[in-house]
Amino acid sequence: MKSAKKLWVIKIGGKVLDQEQGLHHLLAQLSVIKDPVILVHGGGKRATELAEALQVPQQIVEGRRITDSATLNISLMAYAGELNKKVVAQLQSEGCNAIGLTGADGNVLKSDKRSPEPMDFGWVGDPKKEYLNSSFLEQLLEHGMMPVFCALTHDGKGNMLNTNADTMASVIASGMANQYDVHLLYLFEKKGVLKDVEDEESLIPVIHLKDIPMLRENGIIHQGMLPKMKNAADAVEAGVKEVLIASATNLQDVLNAKPQSATHVIS
Amino acid sequence: MKSAKKLWVIKIGGKVLDQEQGLHHLLAQLSVIKDPVILVHGGGKRATELAEALQVPQQIVEGRRITDSATLNISLMAYAGELNKKVVAQLQSEGCNAIGLTGADGNVLKSDKRSPEPMDFGWVGDPKKEYLNSSFLEQLLEHGMMPVFCALTHDGKGNMLNTNADTMASVIASGMANQYDVHLLYLFEKKGVLKDVEDEESLIPVIHLKDIPMLRENGIIHQGMLPKMKNAADAVEAGVKEVLIASATNLQDVLNAKPQSATHVIS
Repeated sequence: MKSAKKLWVIKIGGKVLDQEQGLHHLLAQLSVIKDPVILVHGGGKRATELAEALQVPQQIVEGRRITDSATLNISLMAYAGELNKKVVAQLQSEGCNAIGLTGADGNVLKSDKRSPEPMDFGWVGDPKKEYLNSSFLEQLLEHGMMPVFCALTHDGKGNMLNTNADTMASVIASGMANQYDVHLLYLFEKKGVLKDVEDEESLIPVIHLKDIPMLRENGIIHQGMLPKMKNAADAVEAGVKEVLIASATNLQDVLNAKPQSATHVIS
Repeated sequence: MKSAKKLWVIKIGGKVLDQEQGLHHLLAQLSVIKDPVILVHGGGKRATELAEALQVPQQIVEGRRITDSATLNISLMAYAGELNKKVVAQLQSEGCNAIGLTGADGNVLKSDKRSPEPMDFGWVGDPKKEYLNSSFLEQLLEHGMMPVFCALTHDGKGNMLNTNADTMASVIASGMANQYDVHLLYLFEKKGVLKDVEDEESLIPVIHLKDIPMLRENGIIHQGMLPKMKNAADAVEAGVKEVLIASATNLQDVLNAKPQSATHVIS
């Protein structure tokens, strides 16, 4: 039975993670949200810098990083170590009881290592909502905590797996949709889905699932927005109430439900 | 009121963390302990290697690392990132529901940044048992989880702090002593406290708190054993039932309470 309790699943990524001041401001805003929040963060450029400094060559195929063992270690160091703990410590300083998690911690999110056919992406995992330990997350939320995920899962066989942060947020939101009215918020650089990518005033305020194929055909949803929209659609189909796509700089307006502050993807 | 429930707080450190096979074997043994367990791990040589690879010069004063910002990042990467998550993933693969923690996560252990006088150690924190969020740990244990700590805490003001792993284990054991019959186990390279450091057969099976000054005067407790014994004595004074000092290779004998398998520090 569906409870009416609202839950935000908020994914932050991109440049905001690399700018100390911007991140500080964003976390301060997140820490005062009254409803329960689960945060998912991507990696920013830190992993790339670390790979360069450690002279670990990075292979990018079809826009995706190939995760060999050395690259997995870099993800663990940059995301689960440095970034996750800095985010948690800062949220704590704002009076928000954050707890950092990978999918391995408390076995909260297992994933399947991606098949090496047709392309071997290495230590990369694809999670499913059925794998989410939602009752554990619910307990943390009921105790007033904010789970803070970095984008790493595990295979249950002793291996950590790199995981796409947008997918992880979508899967977590979907897995919580039985217990909560889930609002999944993707924060990134643009104001939302734009009719004209060059014009921030061309925001599309509402996208219904049935509109997506047409928006793809017209080229309005393209490039980096394609996988994000797939994750958004998956979440809505799995029972997430709405997916909001918005700029990190507009967070306050989004939380206040101000018109034109986000693109809302709904069923 | 003191419950009779037994709790192990087990600290692992030193070379065993650097040897994949040995660590694997040790974690497999830890994963089948029937009583609740809290694990604390040190760092091993990984942080030193990482500092070298990243060309971050390390200052060691009086046997202690000075933690500047770059060195703190290395600790976060090596301990909270790579090592902690590998330990957690492996314990999960053994069917043990491990959850990785720093002191910042769930605000489980705050510490005081060490005074810069007479010596400025940088981003280093000294925790106190009064700061332990023992009720949160109790909840995790009651749910069958194994908290796995790396030796990092936070100051509550947004900063992570490097923390001595032996001290952290002692403080955690002390802070849990109201709720559990706590047995604190330090696993290291030697068989225990030896009368003659060159003779593994010269194990001292029992040390009472009142014996410690004499053992120090006789030089039997010296060098690296001095701070460990201080941490052990602090824990016993705080109500920990016993502190065991033993070799990681003897874990099974220690758990089976086999004679001559450990040095027991008791009141």
